[in-house]
Amino acid sequence: MACGEFDLIARYFDRVRSVRRDVAVGIGDDCALLSVDEKKLIAVSTDTLVSGIHFLPDISPADLGYKSLAVNLSDLAAMGADPAWLSLALTLPEVNEPWLAAFSDSLFDLLNYYGMQLIGGDTTRGPLSLTLTIQGLIPAGSALTRSGARIGDWIYVTGTLGDSAAGLAILQDRLTVAEKADRDYLLSRHLRPQPRILQGQALRKLASSAIDLSDGVIADLQHILKRSDCGARLFLDEIPRSAALLRQTSMEQSLQWALAGGEDYELCFTVPEINRGALDVALGHTGADFTCIGQIGPKSEGIQFISNNRPVENIWLGYDHFRE
Amino acid sequence: MACGEFDLIARYFDRVRSVRRDVAVGIGDDCALLSVDEKKLIAVSTDTLVSGIHFLPDISPADLGYKSLAVNLSDLAAMGADPAWLSLALTLPEVNEPWLAAFSDSLFDLLNYYGMQLIGGDTTRGPLSLTLTIQGLIPAGSALTRSGARIGDWIYVTGTLGDSAAGLAILQDRLTVAEKADRDYLLSRHLRPQPRILQGQALRKLASSAIDLSDGVIADLQHILKRSDCGARLFLDEIPRSAALLRQTSMEQSLQWALAGGEDYELCFTVPEINRGALDVALGHTGADFTCIGQIGPKSEGIQFISNNRPVENIWLGYDHFRE
Repeated sequence: MACGEFDLIARYFDRVRSVRRDVAVGIGDDCALLSVDEKKLIAVSTDTLVSGIHFLPDISPADLGYKSLAVNLSDLAAMGADPAWLSLALTLPEVNEPWLAAFSDSLFDLLNYYGMQLIGGDTTRGPLSLTLTIQGLIPAGSALTRSGARIGDWIYVTGTLGDSAAGLAILQDRLTVAEKADRDYLLSRHLRPQPRILQGQALRKLASSAIDLSDGVIADLQHILKRSDCGARLFLDEIPRSAALLRQTSMEQSLQWALAGGEDYELCFTVPEINRGALDVALGHTGADFTCIGQIGPKSEGIQFISNNRPVENIWLGYDHFRE
Repeated sequence: MACGEFDLIARYFDRVRSVRRDVAVGIGDDCALLSVDEKKLIAVSTDTLVSGIHFLPDISPADLGYKSLAVNLSDLAAMGADPAWLSLALTLPEVNEPWLAAFSDSLFDLLNYYGMQLIGGDTTRGPLSLTLTIQGLIPAGSALTRSGARIGDWIYVTGTLGDSAAGLAILQDRLTVAEKADRDYLLSRHLRPQPRILQGQALRKLASSAIDLSDGVIADLQHILKRSDCGARLFLDEIPRSAALLRQTSMEQSLQWALAGGEDYELCFTVPEINRGALDVALGHTGADFTCIGQIGPKSEGIQFISNNRPVENIWLGYDHFRE
């Protein structure tokens, strides 16, 4: 069957399910055309996912469609932005229609949930990979950046950490979990991370800085510290871990995954003392758990790990693709 | 030498050469933050280039840096937009510093020429490929789309067609050109296409539709015809070809490459009879050649090829990645 590139795009991705009023021209021209309210800023982020590096080659197309967008949404969450538009570049080794149908169904479910519109992209033949460029909108002056943390601010994370690393270990046969409920939970935390869009928006006027946790809290917190010119004390005993993770691994393993396992896509953020009460109310309303795990200190002290009120040596580093 | 992903990005791509006032946050946070004048629309386009498909594996990094951006700029040109921001996703098999230096120098030369800013992206390990998402700005109501062509409008192209296909044929040893000047010219037309940004802007109030020529004029014109619900007559004897191409190939070969060779990145556009005089002035001022190659007709007549005032059969089709 003859199946041209343009037919392909039209069939699976040119779905007019979500039509935003700010999209003057969508898929099908040389460019999409978008309008923006002058009081808003655009937040833009790009993520590439390569088969065998960012996802296992046997991942289901539905999980891949969900996760690739969820990971990209997580960057918007870390800025406090409202999701708006997606550009999708899809490189495929072959035209596999059931794969495309499952992938695009899953992607559109998440797009539609957030009122987003797919505005364009590219489809090419080659080794399986995806690049997503997501755009969101945010009232001018209220974006969360990495550079606003100040000495004395409290360091928080949403949710629990380390579950995604455990889910990956299950998929790679490095961890065996007999209990079905725990196994399903840990796998879903790896394959279906929940972007913290609502929480990012709730933090707009309360947090002094924020980042999403893709490489593990140690590595990601260091981006905040570098941009904010600060140090930090991290309370290891407070690092939040799920009951499933604690049941299925040793304390040491769960802590290592929580600190440096990566792909949790929770938010890490800093809050001045004066905003802590308001934070409890605002984040409480979103229904998400959140935990204070440390405090910003002077740059000269670097990053210190504290357990039982005593310093602990730093032995772990976050995942870094090109580190040798 | 330890060389982390973030060092890499910082060293080669976080250059603050071009600082636009509309970029509130650039590279280095979860998202870039951009502001837009309310009277402007944003034009967005994404292109993926895969090694061995869109460029030869032995292409020089300087040519690749130039061409990948030029191809993306060509989409903005086809809408009449002013170039503004670039997101770059780069997938590399290994960290090769001389390659990165040459690639990024060349990319930044072109970015700086157009007053653009690199606002973010992603760097990952994997088979060599690039995805660029370019954004431009355009006064509301003046974008050139594919859907505005009307019966009787004249069809034009800028520059000459087929040179890029001849340049590719030289690189692939399918064409031998002894004369150095012609060889250099044809190679540069393939490796260093000139995006028609100025011409696109000059066409804003004059053209009824426009597209850039990536797949060959037959294939690309059909996108205008489909979106505009029209047909066309194409005057084969008028298809503009360079002196170098005519010297180095047969008439038939030059016409085939001009019609279906692809990668010329010239503009194809339609102009109502009443705007033809103004077009001569406006495009003349940009210094680019342009040629009337046909006329829009009713949809029922499809696309007709005319030579010596007689119809000719259509035997060629544009390049289509997934056509079997």
